[in-house]
Amino acid sequence: MNGNFEYCNPTKLYFGRNALDNLSKELSGYGKNVLLVYGGGSIKKNGIYDRVVKILSECGKNVTEDAGVMPNPTVNKLAEGIERARNSNADLILAVGGGSVCDYAKAVSVSVNCSEDPWEKYFIRFEEPDCKIIPVGCILTMVGTGSEMNGGSVITNHEQKLKIGHVFGEEVFPKFSILDPEFTFTIPKYQMISGIYDIMSHILEQYFSGDDDNTSDYISEGLLRSLIHSAGIAVKDPSDYEARSNIMWTATWALNTLIAKGKTTDWEVHMLGQAVAAHTDATHGMTLAAVSLPYYKHILPYGLKKFRRYAVNVWGISEEGKSDEKIALEGLEAMEKWMRDIGLVMNISALGVTPEMIEGITKSTLIMTGGYKTLTEDEITEILKNSL
Amino acid sequence: MNGNFEYCNPTKLYFGRNALDNLSKELSGYGKNVLLVYGGGSIKKNGIYDRVVKILSECGKNVTEDAGVMPNPTVNKLAEGIERARNSNADLILAVGGGSVCDYAKAVSVSVNCSEDPWEKYFIRFEEPDCKIIPVGCILTMVGTGSEMNGGSVITNHEQKLKIGHVFGEEVFPKFSILDPEFTFTIPKYQMISGIYDIMSHILEQYFSGDDDNTSDYISEGLLRSLIHSAGIAVKDPSDYEARSNIMWTATWALNTLIAKGKTTDWEVHMLGQAVAAHTDATHGMTLAAVSLPYYKHILPYGLKKFRRYAVNVWGISEEGKSDEKIALEGLEAMEKWMRDIGLVMNISALGVTPEMIEGITKSTLIMTGGYKTLTEDEITEILKNSL
Repeated sequence: MNGNFEYCNPTKLYFGRNALDNLSKELSGYGKNVLLVYGGGSIKKNGIYDRVVKILSECGKNVTEDAGVMPNPTVNKLAEGIERARNSNADLILAVGGGSVCDYAKAVSVSVNCSEDPWEKYFIRFEEPDCKIIPVGCILTMVGTGSEMNGGSVITNHEQKLKIGHVFGEEVFPKFSILDPEFTFTIPKYQMISGIYDIMSHILEQYFSGDDDNTSDYISEGLLRSLIHSAGIAVKDPSDYEARSNIMWTATWALNTLIAKGKTTDWEVHMLGQAVAAHTDATHGMTLAAVSLPYYKHILPYGLKKFRRYAVNVWGISEEGKSDEKIALEGLEAMEKWMRDIGLVMNISALGVTPEMIEGITKSTLIMTGGYKTLTEDEITEILKNSL
Repeated sequence: MNGNFEYCNPTKLYFGRNALDNLSKELSGYGKNVLLVYGGGSIKKNGIYDRVVKILSECGKNVTEDAGVMPNPTVNKLAEGIERARNSNADLILAVGGGSVCDYAKAVSVSVNCSEDPWEKYFIRFEEPDCKIIPVGCILTMVGTGSEMNGGSVITNHEQKLKIGHVFGEEVFPKFSILDPEFTFTIPKYQMISGIYDIMSHILEQYFSGDDDNTSDYISEGLLRSLIHSAGIAVKDPSDYEARSNIMWTATWALNTLIAKGKTTDWEVHMLGQAVAAHTDATHGMTLAAVSLPYYKHILPYGLKKFRRYAVNVWGISEEGKSDEKIALEGLEAMEKWMRDIGLVMNISALGVTPEMIEGITKSTLIMTGGYKTLTEDEITEILKNSL
């Protein structure tokens, strides 16, 4: 690895069956007022809500609820959360849900005491918080975004047709996260699979960049192999604890800063996916899946060496008597077969995109550097058309 | 992964060229009295000592020196360090050196305010500290032990012929560590190679345990592949920055608790190596190298599935038309060839062990559970004889 970097990830994780038993210990470190943030109410059906509320009550906390966080949390919802946190004088924001809920909790945490418009400050100007941050704890019920151990927060502005992520520094990371793989058993299969591809894409977007020899890429290959293996088991039996726990742990390490250390990264697939989502409100992981192969096929000639390595080290493609390009393409074919096998959405038409929308989505797509080919607007349009 | 666990690693790392530039920022967080701990004085020859002392002086620190930490720090040296830390009322212990110096600094940090005999309390009874711990910062000049980002501390008692490690909790982890790969360029090749095998052994001792499907093992395979690759480059050109930085980063992640999460581990190779060291004072990594293959060959029939996987996933052994045992053995053969190629010591005779010493070393070897075969004393003797 050639790059200089800092690494610090102070989030405390509790992982495994009955990890929620550790909540009361953590709660004792914070004041009485807790803002309890969650989504559409599935946690009321599966019993997690009752268990959490019981612990909060036993710990003598004053709980203010902030429910209804949507899959792509909006800037309007953020305004609501800020008000509730202010009115309740929240000492801790406790997020119970998936990545959207955790992302949203972090956005609220840096906005409660912010004197400016948080959307403009954090998501348009990408500034760092200079106000007191309310601590966040997470109880994860859906796997994919890695939001439980990083500073990432993605917010959608429907008026502006923008879905933008800000990666905050370690002071915004959750103070603790509770990861019980069994909490993820009841989510619909579509969401599980979408989360699996979100993880895959996080790893690939850090892997497919740079030509140096870097330990991070070797770790990424290990995570990819584990994910591919466990995903195959989980789609057949979503209650396979071993597979679901491996997927949960892989998700955390796929986006907690480790595998990007000392190297460049390329987040163009997320930019494409987020633009599709801003125009369709489609599920995050599926938007990534639907644009990935057209993107990777497009950049393959520019990053041939890495795509070849990916084919061999991750997909076990044999090298004998084949050109580098053939090996690399066979890797993408193996990936496509796996994607179809686990049931991912393979094109953006299936997510509601029509040819007339391509121009608008192109305009909403941020162009990243760091990849093997920095795209032009025409190339974005071409990739989106190939994704239809 | 089936096991429940907690993960928290708060150590802040500064990695890369000129990482020392971050020292003054870190120093500002501590009081005026610094205990500067180092080893035999090589840092005075390569200029690191002067650079560190200059920064300490510029930051207005009162520095008390504690030099002469030996490769296997002793309980007698520990007593000296405790006294110096007490007399100087140390606010921070700054370790400049390799794993022994960092290990020693941590042992001092938990002993300064300890009212009992630290050797008895921490290394014989394995108790946790219940006193105020002096914070530790590390500036790493040798790579291998991972001591820069964990709670491990190994101390040797020559009178009792014991070398024992205690893995302390996160409150004993270094607060910060400075990792500049160029600081490792001047150490003798023998030490570099020894460190490389220490890393290898750390990963293998966590990998060769358990039959579950675990993301940790996939990460380990990635780390092993990176290490094997970079070691080959570093022995040919010790000043290859890319290789040395990959080795440095791999060392940190080989023993900072990550790859043991959710699984069992087997530290018998370290127990054998530490017993050899207690009787010979030989270099740590070399003691591990000299006993590893006889140990692995001995336990291979009990952990055949994992040894087979190791051969295929780490060493690229082809599977076609071979029995599981043949594949597994070919993996160990590939490992042996790599070990000889990079110049490791392959038997304990070369470290000064004579046949008459085997009985004593057997008696000093702690027997671990967690491996594919819990050894008997006779088996330890047999493995040591096969290591001669």
